[in-house]
Amino acid sequence: MILNSITGPEVLKDLSLDELQQLAAEIRTALIERISHHGGHFGPNLGLVEATIALHYVFNSPVDKLVFDVSHQIYTHKMLTGRVDSFLDPSKYDDVTGFSNFRESEHDCFVIGHTSTSISLALGLAKARDLKSTNENIVAIIGDGSLSGGEALEGLNVAGELNSNLIIVVNDNDMSIAENHGGLYKNLKELRESNGTSQNNLFKAMGLDYVFVPDGNDVESLISAFALVKDTSKPIVVHICTIKGKGYSHAENNKEQWHYAQPFTIETGEPLFSFSKESYGSITLDYLLTKMSEDNTVINITSGTPTIVGFTKDIREKHENQFIDVGIAEGTAIALSSGIARNGGKPVYSVFSSFIQRAFDQLSQDVCLNETPVTILVHGASVYGMSDATHIGIFDIPLMSNIPNLVYLAPTCKEEYLAMLDWSIDQNSYPVAIRVPGNGVVSSPSTFDSDYSKINKYILSRKGTKVAILALGSMFQLGEEIANRLNATLVNPRYITGLDIDILASLVDSHDLVVTIEDGILDGGFGQKIASFYGSTSVKVLNYGLNKEFYDRRNSDEVLKECRMTANQIIDDINKLQNQQ
Amino acid sequence: MILNSITGPEVLKDLSLDELQQLAAEIRTALIERISHHGGHFGPNLGLVEATIALHYVFNSPVDKLVFDVSHQIYTHKMLTGRVDSFLDPSKYDDVTGFSNFRESEHDCFVIGHTSTSISLALGLAKARDLKSTNENIVAIIGDGSLSGGEALEGLNVAGELNSNLIIVVNDNDMSIAENHGGLYKNLKELRESNGTSQNNLFKAMGLDYVFVPDGNDVESLISAFALVKDTSKPIVVHICTIKGKGYSHAENNKEQWHYAQPFTIETGEPLFSFSKESYGSITLDYLLTKMSEDNTVINITSGTPTIVGFTKDIREKHENQFIDVGIAEGTAIALSSGIARNGGKPVYSVFSSFIQRAFDQLSQDVCLNETPVTILVHGASVYGMSDATHIGIFDIPLMSNIPNLVYLAPTCKEEYLAMLDWSIDQNSYPVAIRVPGNGVVSSPSTFDSDYSKINKYILSRKGTKVAILALGSMFQLGEEIANRLNATLVNPRYITGLDIDILASLVDSHDLVVTIEDGILDGGFGQKIASFYGSTSVKVLNYGLNKEFYDRRNSDEVLKECRMTANQIIDDINKLQNQQ
Repeated sequence: MILNSITGPEVLKDLSLDELQQLAAEIRTALIERISHHGGHFGPNLGLVEATIALHYVFNSPVDKLVFDVSHQIYTHKMLTGRVDSFLDPSKYDDVTGFSNFRESEHDCFVIGHTSTSISLALGLAKARDLKSTNENIVAIIGDGSLSGGEALEGLNVAGELNSNLIIVVNDNDMSIAENHGGLYKNLKELRESNGTSQNNLFKAMGLDYVFVPDGNDVESLISAFALVKDTSKPIVVHICTIKGKGYSHAENNKEQWHYAQPFTIETGEPLFSFSKESYGSITLDYLLTKMSEDNTVINITSGTPTIVGFTKDIREKHENQFIDVGIAEGTAIALSSGIARNGGKPVYSVFSSFIQRAFDQLSQDVCLNETPVTILVHGASVYGMSDATHIGIFDIPLMSNIPNLVYLAPTCKEEYLAMLDWSIDQNSYPVAIRVPGNGVVSSPSTFDSDYSKINKYILSRKGTKVAILALGSMFQLGEEIANRLNATLVNPRYITGLDIDILASLVDSHDLVVTIEDGILDGGFGQKIASFYGSTSVKVLNYGLNKEFYDRRNSDEVLKECRMTANQIIDDINKLQNQQ
Repeated sequence: MILNSITGPEVLKDLSLDELQQLAAEIRTALIERISHHGGHFGPNLGLVEATIALHYVFNSPVDKLVFDVSHQIYTHKMLTGRVDSFLDPSKYDDVTGFSNFRESEHDCFVIGHTSTSISLALGLAKARDLKSTNENIVAIIGDGSLSGGEALEGLNVAGELNSNLIIVVNDNDMSIAENHGGLYKNLKELRESNGTSQNNLFKAMGLDYVFVPDGNDVESLISAFALVKDTSKPIVVHICTIKGKGYSHAENNKEQWHYAQPFTIETGEPLFSFSKESYGSITLDYLLTKMSEDNTVINITSGTPTIVGFTKDIREKHENQFIDVGIAEGTAIALSSGIARNGGKPVYSVFSSFIQRAFDQLSQDVCLNETPVTILVHGASVYGMSDATHIGIFDIPLMSNIPNLVYLAPTCKEEYLAMLDWSIDQNSYPVAIRVPGNGVVSSPSTFDSDYSKINKYILSRKGTKVAILALGSMFQLGEEIANRLNATLVNPRYITGLDIDILASLVDSHDLVVTIEDGILDGGFGQKIASFYGSTSVKVLNYGLNKEFYDRRNSDEVLKECRMTANQIIDDINKLQNQQ
């Protein structure tokens, strides 16, 4: 085995072409083995094995700098830069993250997890090099799927004006997570089909030089191409064509499903565990399909992640008139939603909390300032969706709830969620976002309002004494437990974006303490507004929420404990404070 | 005069070509006259007179829908759609805004003020039309300068896949506010020089059809071109070449300076009023020029607005190695800054508060998660910068201050600003943003720290009794007045992004009331964190800040009064609350 002797990229340079090809095979086997046990990004990693080997053979990392876009294709890079044990030794699988991480290795320039950032980040590295008058190569590696994002397209444009070294490797596997969407992909197809000779060329139109590598899974031709552009004095695109999932037939045949894999049996491709229970994704899907069939102005919008709400390929095809995937382009998804609403359509845009961060200004200017009645479903906005720091969804409340005109709703269970969703789609007065609960599907026998147009009306769910608990969205069940144990008042605020002055004022006479609990960071959020409201009164306030922190691959229960957000901890705090008085 | 008979666009359709040309001349005269008295966007409006006439001659607004990007070129459209009085009658100048506004006319689809949004908004209108099976034309009008923005480029890509009517008029005057930056402008030049025939074509590479109009100030050829594309069943770009400032020689000769005009004398072009007093722009310029000459790794970054800190053309040229304009592309400006810092450069990015909204995710992911020591100067973040709702800068504190790792500083005067700026550029530990004061340049005889690396340390500026005033940034002088009048404690918090637990806790024993004052919206901001801190104590808190509202062309003093933020109002509130106890 060659792979376990690769202590760093310098070792590669002494290998023959045959050995490099053997190394590629070994890496591929290791990737399949590790991901079959551990889970991880699958197709992107298998497709980029040869290109990563060729990059490290030709360039001199860490002096030369490689920036991987999204970095879900970085496993081979990690194996070749001193981290091979974490791919060969199951006990060390968790020693590395699934993404680029500068704290992990000097060969990783950044922490990266969101798409479309690599070119602009690399431009900065290049500009700093020019300021310092050094001469390292700067290489950005970006997939075709990431090219639809505004930051990537901006980066291509700015790169077209740089008068120094920058190499942009476009890894074209003709796929995003699902199929690509947008006109530029017709141009990539033209380029593939003309062996890179088409006169019409997006990259040249952005002012960049261009070379084409038809077989991006062939080490030899990749090495030639990279050697050719090494030390270039002008920015250049190297367009390589790779096969997503290369070397594992199930993945080659079903690229979308094998973008990311949960643990599976290598022989059959069958997953080891099944996740068949009801989810807010499936609940939303069922609802939307019915609603869409009843009203042909309802349209489901996604920005590259159609399966958040279960829109698999067959469903997308069946409902193509009421579905649009804008590619990875959250800003445009929001602006498009606003336009649809303004012209009488009923847009429903599903997006992960971590990704709506990419569309703040569109939310503020294109939607809220225009008061267009869009419906935005924010998924994964919860401590329970903990993953890499790049993808946590706990910042949406400060981000969204402080924008004027937006009605941001926090349902506490399935039935309330569906009632809010149904209201939102048919109303014409407000831009509405709904924070899809993150604590699993809870069903409630209560009845819920069907009309939410009188905004900022909280629900008094339980009358108690002295202490009132305001438990927002997916923290409602926790609030309920505490209220029951303490015979406290329980309030379901429902509206994240405003205060119910009547209810809040009514609590003053009969309560000494108001407790808020929210499922997101405390700073800039819901509870602090409540604290401000009571600031001039004798009512004390305790706010519970997460710390302002980039939690990285943390256990949700541990984080909650750290933030004193278990029922026992909150009850202890309440008792302590009450006893002081 | 024809112009004053134009009650709506339908009137145009009966005019002869000669009359349309006469109308153009009358409009141009009216524009120059009005702006010479009232101020306003100058060059963009003069350039688009003929195209707007031709659009309304060919299309049938408001059934057909026109979406103007940025909409700083919309004056002619307003004149032709029933609002001509607001351009001819000085007493009615203020009846219309300077931008597109759906509340003003059914001919305006949206409120628009930020760049690069028109294509995505128009796509939404088109998609809704297709859902409803109606057949109106949808037209986006976008300047070349706006094409560098991610949302515009995303929109072009998504448009390339639409299988129905969408017309994108690219108004190419070969200018942004300053000169354009980016590789795509080389392609626009190729297209202009080849009469639109260059095989390499950005728009075609995005999957769009394309026609070229060499003289975009010729009504006749514009009418022919628009008639040709009317009712197109596929998205098409109409690339028209116009002259920014057309018809006023001073503006044609100095396009950058005449992008926007303050009131001026028509004959000479001389401004009626001079603004020569010291500003934070000139203070920053002086500082940066010295710093850049001492350290050639310091680099000044802008996204299309170089003159925020006085980088006029001559200064840009003189310092081209330490200056970069990425075009209107705030996301890339932030990511680029991060890359520069990571590779040892010292980036200083100046941006308006309203525009940094366009780079939240880059600030969070590309900078803060990566802990790169960038310096961001946030200008116009103040109630004193009130203008159109699209451009107010009062949302930055909730937007930025809740991002982990960022150090957001609020200097209270010129000397403190310079001390913070100097520290920030040379330190290596934190991403730093500085909130440039908005209340005019105040000079202080106090001494200020040169080192801000012990973060979240507030300054106790005055020791008083019972009441403590925490007055942030440009609210410090107001806080000082109140503290002096009440013999209250005065604190300069300096750090927006964190609490000084020591100082805050030390106030508990000796103070009944803590008052916070900040120059931005209250929700999600600084004061609410203070209220949360004291929630479990007996200290009362009063938070002062602006309402969560899109203030539109409001007088700053009135807004402050509405928010009870004058010294007398705050003192009244304090006295009232103290007397209750």
